[in-house]
Amino acid sequence: MWVQREIALEPRPRGFHLVTSEVERALPELGEVDVGLCHLFILHTSASLTLNENASPDVRRDFETWFNQAVPERFDWDHSLEGPDDMPAHIKASLLGPSLSLPVSGGRLALGTWQGVYLCEHRDRGGARSLMATVVGQSRREP
Amino acid sequence: MWVQREIALEPRPRGFHLVTSEVERALPELGEVDVGLCHLFILHTSASLTLNENASPDVRRDFETWFNQAVPERFDWDHSLEGPDDMPAHIKASLLGPSLSLPVSGGRLALGTWQGVYLCEHRDRGGARSLMATVVGQSRREP
Amino acid sequence: MWVQREIALEPRPRGFHLVTSEVERALPELGEVDVGLCHLFILHTSASLTLNENASPDVRRDFETWFNQAVPERFDWDHSLEGPDDMPAHIKASLLGPSLSLPVSGGRLALGTWQGVYLCEHRDRGGARSLMATVVGQSRREP
Repeated sequence: MWVQREIALEPRPRGFHLVTSEVERALPELGEVDVGLCHLFILHTSASLTLNENASPDVRRDFETWFNQAVPERFDWDHSLEGPDDMPAHIKASLLGPSLSLPVSGGRLALGTWQGVYLCEHRDRGGARSLMATVVGQSRREP
Repeated sequence: MWVQREIALEPRPRGFHLVTSEVERALPELGEVDVGLCHLFILHTSASLTLNENASPDVRRDFETWFNQAVPERFDWDHSLEGPDDMPAHIKASLLGPSLSLPVSGGRLALGTWQGVYLCEHRDRGGARSLMATVVGQSRREP
Repeated sequence: MWVQREIALEPRPRGFHLVTSEVERALPELGEVDVGLCHLFILHTSASLTLNENASPDVRRDFETWFNQAVPERFDWDHSLEGPDDMPAHIKASLLGPSLSLPVSGGRLALGTWQGVYLCEHRDRGGARSLMATVVGQSRREP
């Protein structure tokens, strides 16, 4: 079985945000998948997706601190027309990547206990971000 | 349906290069895929693939500038036999990653408006790079 | 055909480790896949997977050196309760990523000559790490 759907995420401020539940709610068909994969793909180049610790908000704050230091706004950027947060956002987006492929097992995302999906918003005002979600797998209903 | 094919990309100088069209031309079967995924995998460890802004060449130049500063040739490298550009190339390749999984929808790569596929050439003289492309999906011809 | 299996890797010390053979041994069904994909997913947030040079141990040592310098233990971390190696481990894990999607062709992983799967152990005492492996493809036995 295949499911493909665009998901509009709630707008969020610059930073790293847990969106696992929001994504799962948008994909009720996951419940029908016995064995499969769920591909999440962000349709933007200044925000990204990653998987990390789902418990402590200070982990997500430390992500923001480290990435701001590693890819600073004050740098020898050629591309500065779209604001000082734009070019660092592009670099951060490629360091973290535009997609996640997650295993699906027994009708659920097969994540580790501490794993959650992060929306990484690298712009000051990125607005609502869209994902293209693609699920492929063996249906639980098939003989 | 499954399609798998090795694609030899044109050789390019060190830097970040848009290759979306070149990849699409090599995969005419994408036109037959209603819903699916296109997996692009680079068969090398000193070049990589990423997805980023497809419009401004200065964005791609800024990628080269930032990555050269973050992973410098002058560093305490043990592995230096293959030249000063080799070990930084390996690190950059893993930071960006060897593959991209892209959604396919209605016979086309379902990319965001500003998204393009970058070949990231991290060596001074990397030569022609090869991708293994694997497409899986529901055919538009199937009932 | 679909195969999905959790693989418990041997425990390894902090650093970068080649695990290609260990993974292949745990997935004998790869031999039945004519064309497909093998998705490896680590069920942890302080270790990661990447693909890089499979020959020189000094490349893997240089990975450890560079990542320790880029994401240092001495930094302005908020999240420090789990030890000085914990928060850097989370950042490194997201820079490298939790998963690899590898092409399968003619019953084997279709890797480049010099490519190997690295387990990236970012904790001092990470213990045994688990992967969820998902293989999907066309069986060689199907007509």
